[in-house]
This record gives sequence, C-alpha cells and structure tokens, in this order.
Amino acid sequence: MKFYDCSTAPSPRRVRIFIAEKGIEVPTVQIDLRNREQLTDAFKQINPQCTVPVLELDSGTCLLNSNAICQYLDETCPEPNLMGRDAEERALISSWNHHMEWDGFAAAGECFRNASRGLKGRAMTGAASIDQIPELAERGRQRLQRFLASLNERLGESEFVTGDRYSIADITAFVTIGFMQWTKQEVPANAADLQRWYDQVSARPGSVA
Amino acid sequence: MKFYDCSTAPSPRRVRIFIAEKGIEVPTVQIDLRNREQLTDAFKQINPQCTVPVLELDSGTCLLNSNAICQYLDETCPEPNLMGRDAEERALISSWNHHMEWDGFAAAGECFRNASRGLKGRAMTGAASIDQIPELAERGRQRLQRFLASLNERLGESEFVTGDRYSIADITAFVTIGFMQWTKQEVPANAADLQRWYDQVSARPGSVA
Repeated sequence: MKFYDCSTAPSPRRVRIFIAEKGIEVPTVQIDLRNREQLTDAFKQINPQCTVPVLELDSGTCLLNSNAICQYLDETCPEPNLMGRDAEERALISSWNHHMEWDGFAAAGECFRNASRGLKGRAMTGAASIDQIPELAERGRQRLQRFLASLNERLGESEFVTGDRYSIADITAFVTIGFMQWTKQEVPANAADLQRWYDQVSARPGSVA
Repeated sequence: MKFYDCSTAPSPRRVRIFIAEKGIEVPTVQIDLRNREQLTDAFKQINPQCTVPVLELDSGTCLLNSNAICQYLDETCPEPNLMGRDAEERALISSWNHHMEWDGFAAAGECFRNASRGLKGRAMTGAASIDQIPELAERGRQRLQRFLASLNERLGESEFVTGDRYSIADITAFVTIGFMQWTKQEVPANAADLQRWYDQVSARPGSVA
C-alpha cells in the first residue's frame, strides 16, 4: 500500500488519524498542495480528480477519497473497530459520518475556500479552476454555526457522536473543528457538551496526526 | 423496516432503484415534500435533518441517507450484490460512488435548487431556510458539463462505472442524469459512450422506480 497525503491538509488528516488509531504503518508520500503538485501530469496518473488523500493498493487499485480508504482499512485491519461490528452498526455509523461530512466538513471547506486570498480561482478541490463566491463563504459560516449547535445537542445525549464508543464519525467531526479554526471559528462558549467531547477526543494520541 | 420516500424526489429514487434491483419489498411511507411535510414536528421525530430517504429498522434505528441505507440492504439482502464482494471491491465501488455523488448528483442539486422559482429560501435540503445564490446555479451547470465529459471517458473504458458489472455507482450516475434534466441539461450529443451506457441502464426494469 501507499498513502498519498499532504501533512497540512484537513481531508487526508481524517485518514492520518484513522491510521494512527489503528496503530498501523503505511508508507506515505507527501503531495505538495501549496505548489500545486496535485495538478501535475504525474499525479493525474494516480488520481485524475487531483485530490488527496489517495490509497494505492498492492494490486494497483487507487482509492480516491477518505471514506473508501477508511472502509478498506477497517475491513483489512479490523482492530480497533472504527466503522461498526455488524450490518446495523456499520450503517448507523455511516449515516452519522455522512452528516458530519456534508453538514460539517463540507461547510468548513465552503467557508475557507471561498474566503482565502490564496485560493482565488481554486474555490473547489480538483483539476478545474473555479471562482470564489463570497456569499458562499458566509453561507458556510452560518451552516457551521447550526452544525455546531446540533452536534452540541447530540453530545449531550451520548458520549461520542454515534453512541458509547469512538468511531470514524468522531474523526470527521474532530477534523472539521480544526479546519474551521482556519477561518477563525471556534467551539461556541455555551456549547459545554461539545467542548467536553472535544477535550476528550483531543487527548487521544492519534489526534496529533 | 419502513422506508420514508417521496416518489418525485431524486435522492430517495437512488434507494427506490436499489430496492427494485434487489427484488425486495419494503413497506413505504410517502412524505409530501411539495407541502413541506418533512418540516413537520412529526417527521422531525424520525429525522431531525428533515430529509428523505430514511430507513427505519425494526430496532427503531433510523438511517438518514441513501448510502447508509443501501449499505444496510446490501449486507442484509446480499443478492444481487451492488456494493462489492470483498474489501477491495467494496472500497473501489465506494470510491466511484462518492465521485458520482459529489461531482454529479450534488452539482445537479446545486444547479436545480439555486435556480428553481419554487425553491426560494430552500436552496439546500434540511430544516434551515437558505437563500438561493444564482452564481451557484451556473457553477453547478459548469461542474455537470465537466462531470459528463469525464463520465463519458470512463464509459469508453468500461461497460459500467466501476467495471464490468452494474453497481450502486451506476444508480447514482443514472439518477443524476434524470435530475439534471429538470434544469434542461442533457447528455451531450457527442458523448457516445455515455449515451450507450445510459440506454443500457435505462432498459433495466428497476430504472422506472
């Protein structure tokens, strides 16, 4: 296996934490997003969508997004389990993880990529040049506020996002919070349950990945 | 099990086709999106995110998005298999399906919801009122054009999206093409491989779902 990473980027960070939680070692190649290495012909041979993370398997198959990569690792390196132990738990964790990804992580990305001066013409990941839409940065900010309020409520009911144990949904939510800090957004002062969870998850050794 | 559907909406259509391909019967409840039934207190008890599809399991657990629902059905009703037979194939299909969803289906949604007169203040699914951004309708249109070109290229290399057999990724791509027709976008005249696949997939009995 070979893991294509960029140590400063939030999307591959989801996989880095997943790998750290598994306690496995995967040979890793850094792709220099700052200098647009993802847009080179060499990298397009690996991923025509020009994004990281990528996991290249020994068969040559390349997996091109975080969830597919984590799914493969959870099946092939089963302990500790991070994506569910039976059909119902796997589907429930997948349902929560999707919510964290679309309403949390994607909103943070919408906010950052449409506001950052360094990303003019790069408002979405991928090969195409896409103009920023300032209204979208503001919309992302509002979506994140609602997301954090609902996550705080959820974490008042259960220890972790999906229930009584840590899963991939916690990783996605945790990386979202780090990512939104890039646009100076923080856990709201009155979100005590979210803060309790964030402190707990931050203390895990894998969280520094 | 109980399936919360809306027979005119594209997101639950992904699940309807999946269920039809499996040849199973699932008790179904129609949610009237046109009259905003998804925003009622009664439906919020089922899905606080106010979206369909939802699959309620016999345990009471509710799965709140298409992928999680299909994953559950593929594990519990294994034939015909639509999401992969081993760890590598499952991850590869997941990777392709994610691409169809983010770059195809989500772009079609961006286009439709930001352009439709009937959806003012409803530019995203969910409980919150979100204003339309006309630039986003145009961005969605451009993203879809690029998506269709890359899908045409892919379908010049392989019979189906993920390889030599039909999978959930074909369902997501097929529903995307029906959805984009709502905004008067069609398969480009020069996309012969995409058209060949579309005709083939349209002829499947499940495609009328």
